[in-house]
Amino acid sequence: MFDKHQATLDKAIQALHSRTFYAHYPEHPAPAVYGETADADGQAKFKSSVGKKFEELKQTNPSGWAGQEESPYLQDALKISYPAFTTSSLVENATRAFHVWRKISPAQRAGILLESLERIKARFFEIAYATMHTTGQGYMMAFQASGPHAADRALEAIAAGYEELHRFPSTALWDKPLGKFNIQLNKEWRAVPKGISVVIGCSTFPTWNSVTGIYGSLITGNPVIVKPHPGAILPIAIFVAEIQKVLADNHIDPNTCQLAVDTFDKMITKELAEHPAVKLIDFTGNSQFGSYLEGLAGKTVFTEKTGVNSVILDSVDDVDKVAGNLAFALSLYSGQMCTAPQNFYIPEGGIKSSSGIISFDDFAKKLTDNINSLVDNPKAGPFVLGAVQNKKTSERVKEVESLPGKVLLKSRTFENPMFKTARVATPVVVEVAADKKEIYSKELFGPIALLIKTKNTDQSISLAKEMALQHGAISCGAYTTDTSVRDLIADEMALAATPVSFNLVGGIYMNQNAAFSDFHVTGGNPSGNASFTNPEYVTKRFTWVGHREPVKIG
Amino acid sequence: MFDKHQATLDKAIQALHSRTFYAHYPEHPAPAVYGETADADGQAKFKSSVGKKFEELKQTNPSGWAGQEESPYLQDALKISYPAFTTSSLVENATRAFHVWRKISPAQRAGILLESLERIKARFFEIAYATMHTTGQGYMMAFQASGPHAADRALEAIAAGYEELHRFPSTALWDKPLGKFNIQLNKEWRAVPKGISVVIGCSTFPTWNSVTGIYGSLITGNPVIVKPHPGAILPIAIFVAEIQKVLADNHIDPNTCQLAVDTFDKMITKELAEHPAVKLIDFTGNSQFGSYLEGLAGKTVFTEKTGVNSVILDSVDDVDKVAGNLAFALSLYSGQMCTAPQNFYIPEGGIKSSSGIISFDDFAKKLTDNINSLVDNPKAGPFVLGAVQNKKTSERVKEVESLPGKVLLKSRTFENPMFKTARVATPVVVEVAADKKEIYSKELFGPIALLIKTKNTDQSISLAKEMALQHGAISCGAYTTDTSVRDLIADEMALAATPVSFNLVGGIYMNQNAAFSDFHVTGGNPSGNASFTNPEYVTKRFTWVGHREPVKIG
Repeated sequence: MFDKHQATLDKAIQALHSRTFYAHYPEHPAPAVYGETADADGQAKFKSSVGKKFEELKQTNPSGWAGQEESPYLQDALKISYPAFTTSSLVENATRAFHVWRKISPAQRAGILLESLERIKARFFEIAYATMHTTGQGYMMAFQASGPHAADRALEAIAAGYEELHRFPSTALWDKPLGKFNIQLNKEWRAVPKGISVVIGCSTFPTWNSVTGIYGSLITGNPVIVKPHPGAILPIAIFVAEIQKVLADNHIDPNTCQLAVDTFDKMITKELAEHPAVKLIDFTGNSQFGSYLEGLAGKTVFTEKTGVNSVILDSVDDVDKVAGNLAFALSLYSGQMCTAPQNFYIPEGGIKSSSGIISFDDFAKKLTDNINSLVDNPKAGPFVLGAVQNKKTSERVKEVESLPGKVLLKSRTFENPMFKTARVATPVVVEVAADKKEIYSKELFGPIALLIKTKNTDQSISLAKEMALQHGAISCGAYTTDTSVRDLIADEMALAATPVSFNLVGGIYMNQNAAFSDFHVTGGNPSGNASFTNPEYVTKRFTWVGHREPVKIG
Repeated sequence: MFDKHQATLDKAIQALHSRTFYAHYPEHPAPAVYGETADADGQAKFKSSVGKKFEELKQTNPSGWAGQEESPYLQDALKISYPAFTTSSLVENATRAFHVWRKISPAQRAGILLESLERIKARFFEIAYATMHTTGQGYMMAFQASGPHAADRALEAIAAGYEELHRFPSTALWDKPLGKFNIQLNKEWRAVPKGISVVIGCSTFPTWNSVTGIYGSLITGNPVIVKPHPGAILPIAIFVAEIQKVLADNHIDPNTCQLAVDTFDKMITKELAEHPAVKLIDFTGNSQFGSYLEGLAGKTVFTEKTGVNSVILDSVDDVDKVAGNLAFALSLYSGQMCTAPQNFYIPEGGIKSSSGIISFDDFAKKLTDNINSLVDNPKAGPFVLGAVQNKKTSERVKEVESLPGKVLLKSRTFENPMFKTARVATPVVVEVAADKKEIYSKELFGPIALLIKTKNTDQSISLAKEMALQHGAISCGAYTTDTSVRDLIADEMALAATPVSFNLVGGIYMNQNAAFSDFHVTGGNPSGNASFTNPEYVTKRFTWVGHREPVKIG
């Protein structure tokens, strides 16, 4: 099993360290890559699962069947039901599986996990449709984020874990000269897994945000309980089913990776997280729950919570390209990405450009014009914006219009040609004074842009830094043609542990984070305490324990 | 500065990974190594500092002078006073120093830190006497632990930090093919130090337990405030003074590493730890305070707290050698090591040996006989036992005699030929029933041995594991000639994150932990959350932040 995937692993470890472009799973859903009928087959497979029991899991004796997913495109229940289990039976199963899984070599574990990804590759299209109809993502994002990009992130976690597990020798002879004789000890080091790992999913990126925790815990020898968001189960259920099949094929307990489905009215997340046998928790979601988890004693917790992402506008080469890029970044999946921009800091004196100063109002107009033309382009708008996962997001977008600021662009609806009933919302743009800090000092999740008029770029930087330090930030955009301003932004935002994308124009956006190159979340500000995938992300999942014994003489 | 020490660093990094024997600083205080007059000079230097102001620090404008150290050998005040500073001035100084220090390259930082260790080497004897007269350690331990062993641990932390800082490239070209064109981004990654680091020392190992945190924080770019135990300042003050001198020689603010002295009646530890600008805390000491520190929000905390160290006795080759080894391990520095054995689990059916079964009582007699003959050997006893740092330890040893158990050996005093007034205590040995768990479920710091009569070795293992999981353990000794029992102990204690020393006899003891080979504390049980020096110990002191920008097309 391992030999077959050795080359994949070796390349992934190399990519981890070179941080140049690397992707193992092709991101384009091209027939030439994935097969002529792959898309249609995947769609048909998804459609056939609607309204039925999901019976692919190898978990036995459920306490019942449950499922409350709704399609944001259809605004209708999917009526898929999944086997449900009590917390105690999940923990018992995981404990039993643990003592087998932890004794399997890292190479064997890697082989099994890589094989599961290969099999999941054959289901990328099905996962894409499942993702669309749970998260509201557009087709292309649903394919890429939940399929190849997620699989690359999973591969990255396997590679990082595999490398860390081999960071120190498993045995060594310690031979200490003491003059007349030597003291000789045989030493050995074990990477001891921490125990049961619970991975708590979110409603917007059900696979991308969960697979690093799942594969990171598994490669380091921990059994995993996957607790998806009740609104987005199917995409990650397919991952878990494939992992279980490979485990079973290798005569290993499929409960090594269990799915733990619950419903909105009876969530089991706290019960799972607080169980004394649960040692590792991965979480993506709101800050309140994430901070509660971080505060649990005796647990190792990895969080990605919320943040306030800033864009600092100082000076530009081509303002139209900048406005176009930011309009797209704001509209992509209707601002429902943790990396989407929210606070745009623009000096009251305007933005310097190669064609003269662009006033605050002129920039605002260019931004709103770009948003409008993207939304109104029937070949782009509906697919870029997708649908809104949660009703509350739609409500929030409306509420923003009554903030004490000047509404520069109202949110509106548009027709999705494929799904007439889709829940949609275009970006709302509001001008806010820099002294109205209470308005912009929090995450406003969804397609919401606040244009904040600052005294100057120094104030813009200072506010962006303050927001990141106080409320967290996962991403930052900055536009400047001045190298000293660039240096200042790079330094100040680094101190706020926020990665900065400088001067992005064209087909690359501040929202995007690439596996093997971009660390996702730094762990250094309140937006989360973990980073996909730096060494800590895997080393914290096990403990080095060294035993020793004198060398036998004779 | 760096070139001079490049080879030292390279060798240390290699040693980190080979984990075979390595020591940069010679552990033997031999005249041939350290010079004919080094010992006498060091002693004279120490004596001349008694009763005076310690004026070597480059910290200016103290708010006063303070110092309450007492020699456990003389049971008299040393009357050395140190400059004292308010928390706010310490933090202000550290903040100013931070923004210079963080911009200095890791290579330059390494050069400065390695130079400081070289200069400290010239003061090992002075530090040894300072350690004796604050901690009560015997001469040899005081020299080794506070001098060469501490310097090796410091070097290990520098090496680990230096390597982790170079784990990822500082820049890379990310070149993503998109069919008709490529997206090219220049990326850069910065290892951003977390901020002010406070290192809180303990009274028994004032340098060994503090230098890893000090050098680990400094190499990763953080300014350090060293808060020694008010009872053991001088040894670490000498380290700080030498670091400050090298900083000043290199025109860097000496406040990059400050000494923060306080007194028993007015401790500043909480004030420092809770200051919002303090981001990193290293602590060695009691569990209650350590757990309070671990619970502080927004801090990265490294603790070494207390534990209950077990010895599992199953079967032996030569019982006399075993009893001799354990009597020494128990007596060494009067049991005031965090790695000293406390709970000895002996089956009621006795210990199997090559010369037949050794009964519980016979083993107890052999152990107490060995303790007595060590104590009564005037050439060994006083030097191995040293003195008792804290009056409370002497009281605890006495209290143990009234526990509900059978006192097999009472603690007594003995005459130290050099110091008639030394505060001393020999080991007390008490037999305790296995069902009296409340007695042995906590650390009894000092020369205290509890011999616990168990049903069999399975119960011994189970109790040792339970103690480690519930109350922490830093070390474990095990004696067995049965490979299946050995495997069981190795596996069960690994699950309790406790390193096991098997079958130690002769001149090596379970108390000893070697730099570059033994991880000290695993971080996996309640005895502490950190390990000297695994990757986490340094990676948690900084954050990886990546910036990116499109390649300019020119």
